[in-house]
Amino acid sequence: MSEWLLTYEGLDPDREGLREALCTLGNGYVATRGALPECVADGVHYPGTYAAGLYNRLSSEVSGRTVENESLVNLPNWLPLRFRYDDGPWIDETTAEVSSHRLELDVHRGVLTRHTIFEEPDGRRTRVTQRRFVSMDDPHLCGLETTLVPEGRGGRLQVWSGLDGTVVNGGVPRYSSLPSRHLEPLSTSVVDPETVCLAVVTNQSAIRIALASRLRIFLGGEPVDGPGEVEERTGAIALGRRVDVEPGDEVIVEKVVALFTSRDDAISEPVSDACERVRVVADFDELLDRHVVAWRHRWNRTKLELGCDGEVARLLHLHMFHCMVTVSPHSALLDVGVPARGLHGEAYRGHIFWDELFIFPFFSLRVPELTRSLLLYRYRRLPQARRLARAAGLSGALYPWQSSANGREETQTMHLNPESGHWLPDASHLQRHVNAAIAYNVWHYFQATGDEEFMRFFGAEMLLEIARMWASTATYDHSMDRYEIHGVMGPDEYHEGYPGRDAPGLDNNSYTNVMAVWCLCRALEVLELLPPATGADLRERLVITPQELDRWDDVSRKMRLCFHDSGLPGDLAGPVFSQFEGYEQLEELDWEAYRERYGDIARLDRILEAEGDSPDRYQLTKQPDVLMLFYLLSEQELGEVLARLDYDHVDDCGLRRRCIAHYEPRTSHGSTLSRVVHAWIHAREHRERSWQEFLDALHSDVDDIQGGTTREGIHVGAMAGTIDLVQRCYTGLELRQEELRLDPVIPAELGSLGLSLHYRGRNVHLRIDDRVVRMKVGRGADGPLAVRVRGDLYEVKAGDTAEFRLA
Amino acid sequence: MSEWLLTYEGLDPDREGLREALCTLGNGYVATRGALPECVADGVHYPGTYAAGLYNRLSSEVSGRTVENESLVNLPNWLPLRFRYDDGPWIDETTAEVSSHRLELDVHRGVLTRHTIFEEPDGRRTRVTQRRFVSMDDPHLCGLETTLVPEGRGGRLQVWSGLDGTVVNGGVPRYSSLPSRHLEPLSTSVVDPETVCLAVVTNQSAIRIALASRLRIFLGGEPVDGPGEVEERTGAIALGRRVDVEPGDEVIVEKVVALFTSRDDAISEPVSDACERVRVVADFDELLDRHVVAWRHRWNRTKLELGCDGEVARLLHLHMFHCMVTVSPHSALLDVGVPARGLHGEAYRGHIFWDELFIFPFFSLRVPELTRSLLLYRYRRLPQARRLARAAGLSGALYPWQSSANGREETQTMHLNPESGHWLPDASHLQRHVNAAIAYNVWHYFQATGDEEFMRFFGAEMLLEIARMWASTATYDHSMDRYEIHGVMGPDEYHEGYPGRDAPGLDNNSYTNVMAVWCLCRALEVLELLPPATGADLRERLVITPQELDRWDDVSRKMRLCFHDSGLPGDLAGPVFSQFEGYEQLEELDWEAYRERYGDIARLDRILEAEGDSPDRYQLTKQPDVLMLFYLLSEQELGEVLARLDYDHVDDCGLRRRCIAHYEPRTSHGSTLSRVVHAWIHAREHRERSWQEFLDALHSDVDDIQGGTTREGIHVGAMAGTIDLVQRCYTGLELRQEELRLDPVIPAELGSLGLSLHYRGRNVHLRIDDRVVRMKVGRGADGPLAVRVRGDLYEVKAGDTAEFRLA
Repeated sequence: MSEWLLTYEGLDPDREGLREALCTLGNGYVATRGALPECVADGVHYPGTYAAGLYNRLSSEVSGRTVENESLVNLPNWLPLRFRYDDGPWIDETTAEVSSHRLELDVHRGVLTRHTIFEEPDGRRTRVTQRRFVSMDDPHLCGLETTLVPEGRGGRLQVWSGLDGTVVNGGVPRYSSLPSRHLEPLSTSVVDPETVCLAVVTNQSAIRIALASRLRIFLGGEPVDGPGEVEERTGAIALGRRVDVEPGDEVIVEKVVALFTSRDDAISEPVSDACERVRVVADFDELLDRHVVAWRHRWNRTKLELGCDGEVARLLHLHMFHCMVTVSPHSALLDVGVPARGLHGEAYRGHIFWDELFIFPFFSLRVPELTRSLLLYRYRRLPQARRLARAAGLSGALYPWQSSANGREETQTMHLNPESGHWLPDASHLQRHVNAAIAYNVWHYFQATGDEEFMRFFGAEMLLEIARMWASTATYDHSMDRYEIHGVMGPDEYHEGYPGRDAPGLDNNSYTNVMAVWCLCRALEVLELLPPATGADLRERLVITPQELDRWDDVSRKMRLCFHDSGLPGDLAGPVFSQFEGYEQLEELDWEAYRERYGDIARLDRILEAEGDSPDRYQLTKQPDVLMLFYLLSEQELGEVLARLDYDHVDDCGLRRRCIAHYEPRTSHGSTLSRVVHAWIHAREHRERSWQEFLDALHSDVDDIQGGTTREGIHVGAMAGTIDLVQRCYTGLELRQEELRLDPVIPAELGSLGLSLHYRGRNVHLRIDDRVVRMKVGRGADGPLAVRVRGDLYEVKAGDTAEFRLA
Repeated sequence: MSEWLLTYEGLDPDREGLREALCTLGNGYVATRGALPECVADGVHYPGTYAAGLYNRLSSEVSGRTVENESLVNLPNWLPLRFRYDDGPWIDETTAEVSSHRLELDVHRGVLTRHTIFEEPDGRRTRVTQRRFVSMDDPHLCGLETTLVPEGRGGRLQVWSGLDGTVVNGGVPRYSSLPSRHLEPLSTSVVDPETVCLAVVTNQSAIRIALASRLRIFLGGEPVDGPGEVEERTGAIALGRRVDVEPGDEVIVEKVVALFTSRDDAISEPVSDACERVRVVADFDELLDRHVVAWRHRWNRTKLELGCDGEVARLLHLHMFHCMVTVSPHSALLDVGVPARGLHGEAYRGHIFWDELFIFPFFSLRVPELTRSLLLYRYRRLPQARRLARAAGLSGALYPWQSSANGREETQTMHLNPESGHWLPDASHLQRHVNAAIAYNVWHYFQATGDEEFMRFFGAEMLLEIARMWASTATYDHSMDRYEIHGVMGPDEYHEGYPGRDAPGLDNNSYTNVMAVWCLCRALEVLELLPPATGADLRERLVITPQELDRWDDVSRKMRLCFHDSGLPGDLAGPVFSQFEGYEQLEELDWEAYRERYGDIARLDRILEAEGDSPDRYQLTKQPDVLMLFYLLSEQELGEVLARLDYDHVDDCGLRRRCIAHYEPRTSHGSTLSRVVHAWIHAREHRERSWQEFLDALHSDVDDIQGGTTREGIHVGAMAGTIDLVQRCYTGLELRQEELRLDPVIPAELGSLGLSLHYRGRNVHLRIDDRVVRMKVGRGADGPLAVRVRGDLYEVKAGDTAEFRLA
């Protein structure tokens, strides 16, 4: 089977993850704009970038029933389409038997095809084939072509095509008590005999959304003319057509829809622009052709040539597809971020977390313009982050853990444990480490591009304000002559505080403290990099005094890190980073007993809470916390931080191994990101283990390994993480000091690997197997490319191809 | 007097230009956003970027009366502020005598100060001092501080501070028959005892605008507390306060306003964001301090060090100030263009013409990020330009002459001649040369920055689509083996067609034909520059076949140019470009007779039409048309085009001189751009004439040389043009083939000149006088800077200072 085609057969409820992963089309625009930007719950406003992909999924049911009915997968539907014969019931799975049903997602062309056969009680079969796309060529358009072939019996076929603004957010069962209706109807209208228009407005953010839909029907290739029937109700409008069909006749129904919102640039007003656009668009086939060309060009820029088996390639392509529908050239000109569940999943209400950390490397090395636009999304929210810092008594900028539409902190303060039914206080806003992720992303974008204009205008300011926040959050302890960071949470969300301590938060989380130092070092470095006049202006504007810089330097040299003994024998004995101060004094969990009792213990937090216990009491972790350090920082980088802090005595080559050996068994993998990180840190020493973790990560969504979460939206961070494992981890690709460094450890299962990168203005093509690296450098920026392969430095000129044998 | 301070004394109606030029504050955001984006006239929608600066000018009157009354300059007022004593009449020029009135605009700090003394009939004098700014630090904020000092008598002073959404567009008298009210009220509310909020929505584009205003009053430095009075009516709300004052008491009234609109990024919803922002802002002085720092930093990047007299420096600074309030880092993240009359003038309803051609060089050489954002404004409207091309029967993209909010052509089809009262057909949409200007701007941005990412993503596509339009508009004449362009208008708007020919438009306009060839050459060049894979993708996406490229090449080699004899004696005899085919057959105008009869004949078009005649009949021109070629293209560039077209026999060194001698006497200077171009083309051979034209251009607005047009908005193209004369023309600065070329001819009146540039990632400081060029190159991009001074090539390394003696 093609490496580009994914299929789903029948109606298997156990494969909902796959189904979800397949039914999610997009182009980075439609979902962002057509989605719901808020959720109002219990009087609390969540003005998030509520990006649940109603629009894209909406024509996902062949029967296209409206929300009042249950449809095949109970999805609400903006773009319903239905059919029936002789005024009988609308044909769907409640009125007819589904004798066959098959979805095919062609990720290379960005087209979802559905083949369904409905058998009515009277024996008539209708073969239904649907092709749908959300245009990658023109971001405002999507198309749905339905081919209906009656068999056994004909009749007067009625086709009904609607625009329905009465849809609700119903994708996350545990949100069912929250308000789910976010659209107010504004208007419906008939534009011309084949076109209708619907306008709605979101009920908190007052964003106006207009859709115009054109319906064309062909019988045996000839257009079916004649008057249509219009059906209107508040917030919805549909156009119907009737045609007499004989058995074997082929009826093609073309629905083309244009969507505009009041937040679009270069428009006059959404309704008039939507109607104008749909009036001048080409027919379905031509739109589809342009869409396919646009997708091919996107793949050309992001190509991975894989020597491995079809399943791995297929899933990697699926993951790339999801990254590319979430972030695209069409979103690059918009003010949008990357929500944790892509643009379609309703979970987390579209809030932006730290997932960019896992997603940006894919784009920065291929289409850095996209990363730049996502960093600008953060830059635009710097004023809000400054206010959050001030509200927390800190200086600089404190980006929130869950960032909403205007950049406000929207982390829930209570959450529901579905195991116990309890509502519990939630301190996860203390995950200030998201600020380190943002600084890291700025720095790595700069490494990948050398984009000094970005740094001067936007990047440096973010780095400095984040560094300042870290310096202000650190408190000085005279007795130790060390700085400490108190009251935070690391990436491990199972630990919110100390048992018995009232205030939430933990002290001296190693991940946070190391990354804070890293941020301070980069901030000091960027001040050196900037043209002196620019740096001086920036320091004046931000009122950064020499005294403050001295403090940053001091904090970056005297941050306290906590270590404890691994408790392991032999080679593995010795100090490890303490996840936080006092971690080693927590109780050990009886992992075996819990596994035996509960089977899947990924969500140990819920299990323990339901038992009246708390994960705070135990040495356990949801996902890598200490181990994130070995994921984000190279050995050399981490070594530099430890040396600066005068902790280099622990930095023998065994530190990493000891930490892995200590923490891995205590990790429940309660996040899809967990497998990605473990695959990464094992890549060099435990290649088989790494490959197994990689495969687990690869199946996170299609196998819905968290049991139901994929249905709430795919995990775009983990998806991007699997691609990055191939592109950076297994190639040993690192960008430092204007060098492209390679140190490949290609898994045998991958065979060979081809990569097309864009690095500092040059196209670079790499082909790597276990013996040789072949590098072709395209035309581009001046000067040769500096390449370091396994430690040796080379230069490759533009237009040259170089080969490096791996010793 | 300081080079940074401009003043206006009294109420001299003859100096309205100066007054207008001084009362225009801004930060590139507030006007864009707070302005009215449309004008609906006679049933015709003009959904332009209607940018009349109501907001900025609106608190420009000390009495701040609402629109129902005539105020000092009859400006409507979003932000009224008024005062009175003991429930008497509100104090203004109708109820009190204005015994002194003085405006001071400090362009370095971006602060407008007004000093006014009102004398009431009973003898009480009130000294009023107002300081106002639109924050360059936080784009959403503006501040107005009013100090009131009663003399002679005290009383119970009442201060009244409002937000008024019932304002209208009344700045252009000849638009008075068009609808002038564009806002519908949405809501008014009292947020807290010192804050009120107003929300309105524009009535065509449905953009919501929210303002929140905070009022604080101090008597002798102490805050005045106590309950305020609220006054509300539909679309307006005000807060009043009363305080007992003695003669000599100083009352300070601080009004701080936040503005948000529904088109802003990073917001939740305009009302909530405006209220939240104004609640947390600092006091007036702190806001002002930050604003002043932000302005200083902007000046640091755009510094011109002038050795000339104060008046020239002052006016150049004023022009730079206007450029910087129109285009700023705050507009760089928005989808906004540069309207012809800046963001404040109501003339032309905010439509975008070709003025960027004159404006971009200032920014591209200082803060190229700003040019980039303005080019993206055009890129976003490429789909609309493609539709316009199709509607005109052309391929590629045809950008409109007057571009509206969504990029649609909104050139009027009728215009009013105020001299005759006639409404006349208007063919000015045939000025397709705006497309050459856009291509030129893309290319020159790329020359200044080397920004390949921009070119790959956006720039190349614009160049190719514009070139394609030129190729498709050219028709082939077999008999001549030449291509021709029929039915267009050049920059000279006095010629719309041939006398006696029904269809409007002219054939073979030299400016258009040469620039079309120039565009085709750049398009072919950019295809060579792009990485091959990118170029191939782009050609496939745009469906550019090899045959089409062959045609482009053919057109670029066989375009017809028309010449005729200058009719001048001696050295000046010989061929000149014909402004268009057949120009030389038009009648000569008796210029002396018209000058005698009418005095100012700049608007000869109106004069002739009122006489029942037509400018189409005569050899006259409103503004440079042929001569634009010598403004835009260096001798070498123009020579290359002529050689390619096999017309190089006319390109002896006399062509330029002959064209100037022929066309200059036939030019009425009906555009402010005219003087700029003439100053440029005379700079090398007629230095005194150049200086005189420069001075005329410099005074265009402050002296309102067109008699009333400045009041409708300053001329930002001409303002930028005067700066560019200093920065590029008199220095002979040219960017070609990655070299920075200099060939200074500094006018004696300027003395010496210092310039801080940003070129290809490096800060470059130049100091030039008539003997020496001193160049300091800052840190930045790799490699030395290539400099060509008067033809000789040098390299200057980063960090070095070089001196070049001028022979």
